[in-house]
Amino acid sequence: MTKQTQRAECTKGVEWDRCYAQRTQRVTSSAIREILKITQQPEIISFAGGLPASEFFLAHELEAACHHVLSNEAQKALQYGVTEGYPPLKAYLVDKMRKYGIVAEEDNILITNGSQQALDLVGRIFIDSGDVVLIEAPTYLGALQAWNIYGPRYVTVPLDDEGMRVDQLENILKQEPVKFIYVLPNFHNPAGVTLSLERRKKLVEIAARHKVFVVEDDPYGELRFEGEDLPPLVTLDGSVLYLSTFSKILSPGMRLGWITAPKEVINKLVQAKQGADLHTSTFVQMVANDICRRDLLHPHVLKLRQIYKERRDTMLASMEKYFPPGVRWTRPQGGLFLWVTLPEHVDTTEFLKVAVEEKVAFVPGPAFYPDGRGRNCMRLSFSNVTPQVIEEGIRRLGQALVREFG
Amino acid sequence: MTKQTQRAECTKGVEWDRCYAQRTQRVTSSAIREILKITQQPEIISFAGGLPASEFFLAHELEAACHHVLSNEAQKALQYGVTEGYPPLKAYLVDKMRKYGIVAEEDNILITNGSQQALDLVGRIFIDSGDVVLIEAPTYLGALQAWNIYGPRYVTVPLDDEGMRVDQLENILKQEPVKFIYVLPNFHNPAGVTLSLERRKKLVEIAARHKVFVVEDDPYGELRFEGEDLPPLVTLDGSVLYLSTFSKILSPGMRLGWITAPKEVINKLVQAKQGADLHTSTFVQMVANDICRRDLLHPHVLKLRQIYKERRDTMLASMEKYFPPGVRWTRPQGGLFLWVTLPEHVDTTEFLKVAVEEKVAFVPGPAFYPDGRGRNCMRLSFSNVTPQVIEEGIRRLGQALVREFG
Repeated sequence: MTKQTQRAECTKGVEWDRCYAQRTQRVTSSAIREILKITQQPEIISFAGGLPASEFFLAHELEAACHHVLSNEAQKALQYGVTEGYPPLKAYLVDKMRKYGIVAEEDNILITNGSQQALDLVGRIFIDSGDVVLIEAPTYLGALQAWNIYGPRYVTVPLDDEGMRVDQLENILKQEPVKFIYVLPNFHNPAGVTLSLERRKKLVEIAARHKVFVVEDDPYGELRFEGEDLPPLVTLDGSVLYLSTFSKILSPGMRLGWITAPKEVINKLVQAKQGADLHTSTFVQMVANDICRRDLLHPHVLKLRQIYKERRDTMLASMEKYFPPGVRWTRPQGGLFLWVTLPEHVDTTEFLKVAVEEKVAFVPGPAFYPDGRGRNCMRLSFSNVTPQVIEEGIRRLGQALVREFG
Repeated sequence: MTKQTQRAECTKGVEWDRCYAQRTQRVTSSAIREILKITQQPEIISFAGGLPASEFFLAHELEAACHHVLSNEAQKALQYGVTEGYPPLKAYLVDKMRKYGIVAEEDNILITNGSQQALDLVGRIFIDSGDVVLIEAPTYLGALQAWNIYGPRYVTVPLDDEGMRVDQLENILKQEPVKFIYVLPNFHNPAGVTLSLERRKKLVEIAARHKVFVVEDDPYGELRFEGEDLPPLVTLDGSVLYLSTFSKILSPGMRLGWITAPKEVINKLVQAKQGADLHTSTFVQMVANDICRRDLLHPHVLKLRQIYKERRDTMLASMEKYFPPGVRWTRPQGGLFLWVTLPEHVDTTEFLKVAVEEKVAFVPGPAFYPDGRGRNCMRLSFSNVTPQVIEEGIRRLGQALVREFG
């Protein structure tokens, strides 16, 4: 008997299905995971994942940063660090956020493994099973994936071209014991829309009156390529938990994000993170800090705005050219995504199979709803595909749409 | 009114204490965090944290690895990756573990942010509130911190010089609905003892008979500096979940560990990790993989064994020299820690305050128990202090012991 069969046979002894915690039953989907897998097939033109443009990563600058960190401070960079995050990086973030009007001290910041971990930690310290969380519909699917395991009940508010329909908030908050409101104000994922200034003010006013806090997720705020910056909600009310990340402005593969919150909330989040993984990679934090301190990030962001604007423009023009009548889409002023609404009878989950045969991919709408809505919608990302390839991909998609539903 | 005061005032609107999830009430201690803070004060000789020797980190080799990765594969290293882990690193781990008799395929492995995240994910998918988890007493405090939030009830088995008192298992398993058994077989943290071969066999036999699975935590297994390697439990029973890490053999600051388990368990863990933080840093995984593929890790481990053996020897000899009669300690054959038992009337939590005044630190025993036992015990780590400084630190500790309890 080989060891391999020994392993397999012994495994039968444990009835795993009876061992899993009840909360695991709430986790059924693995949409992001499957998206990431599709995007790794090189022959497919993928508008699916929200991947930054790989060809512009600051490879050379990051190599120099690794050199600086490892030749000067290796003993610190490779050793355990504090859970809160590398202090000089937090100090940099204090300055960075001040430029956007966000007043924070280092103690208001926790460094996380990307925004996804910040979402998980928020769920971990705030969501008891059955708690009501108010979300936009559609909303970021990673937030649903982070929170589902904690068993919230979602109540949804629709979006229009100016973001969340804040006029519907008051009624919901009167009727439902909402614990917090989750909002993506800038270049919404997946919808591509931006919350207007008037609605921002109204949202924090209503939330404060009902003593409900707001979780503001802002991964794309710096990637505005037209129009004026609007104030983050956290500048209007200090009880807002503000999440952001280096994923879209430096590198998602480094896994580096942060959350800004009142100090007592940060203390709870730090306890939660300590149990979850002790701390975020010291080495990665120090390398990112080196890049930031050499002022390499802002010029890079300016460049990314140009690149993504061109890609958005190409996608919008290609959709005008190739999509059949009856299809609508949003026109984002920044970020990576736009949202397409097809005629009522189209099922985008079914259509994805056709599209993948045509070697083009997107994310079907229902992934962004907690309840299966969005059946005739899809999210397209324009960030990680060159303009020429965007046109070809949209042509394929338009051709398949015309053939299937046209 | 400045923005700063505006922030503070607005924050008063939300009653945070009423917002936190019930599970956060289970998290009260933050022992590791406080330890890491003490160890950052340079004037203190710290035997507290389980920190590897910083001065031997492979700084130069890691710098070369960063160069290789960023000059050849930056677009992959800096981009999103799959949740399961970087496939070449998983393939390396398959080969590495085979040398210790562990039969695994890539699908049996999940890469995590250090072992701490593997512990958290195990808790997340297996522990419902009230579930019984069988632990050693004392046990790794990071496991308690990872799991407390999920609300287990701990049942404990004592240790002796041959590790867990496996002879007590049968009775406990007959009386308690144990979900899993958590064991640190090699150079136990904090106890420094190693589970004998006979007990390893008996443990997996009893567990299998009761259809209870085992979580085997093995961060130090390669750091054996005397005696013969003993088979990991997972080589005796394929249902064992086996956790290990690069933290003690390469760098804890990189945050890189892994868990080996039956494929269906890995699938559940992957879903959990996806919600928790999407994936472990692609960049860090690729840099570690480069080090491994150049065969730089094993020679480094051989060197660490020498260094830690010398430090252990110095600590043992210094304790003989400076500690008063009536103090006992373990004699580890590997790893980073040993465990000191003081006379019954000594309270090490109180004594720590005296020790810190003398500029020497350790971890008091109760941190390693779920129920406040270990009052007269302490953990000493010999890994991150040079022999000369070890002797001085033990001299200070012995002097304080004589003075206080003499």
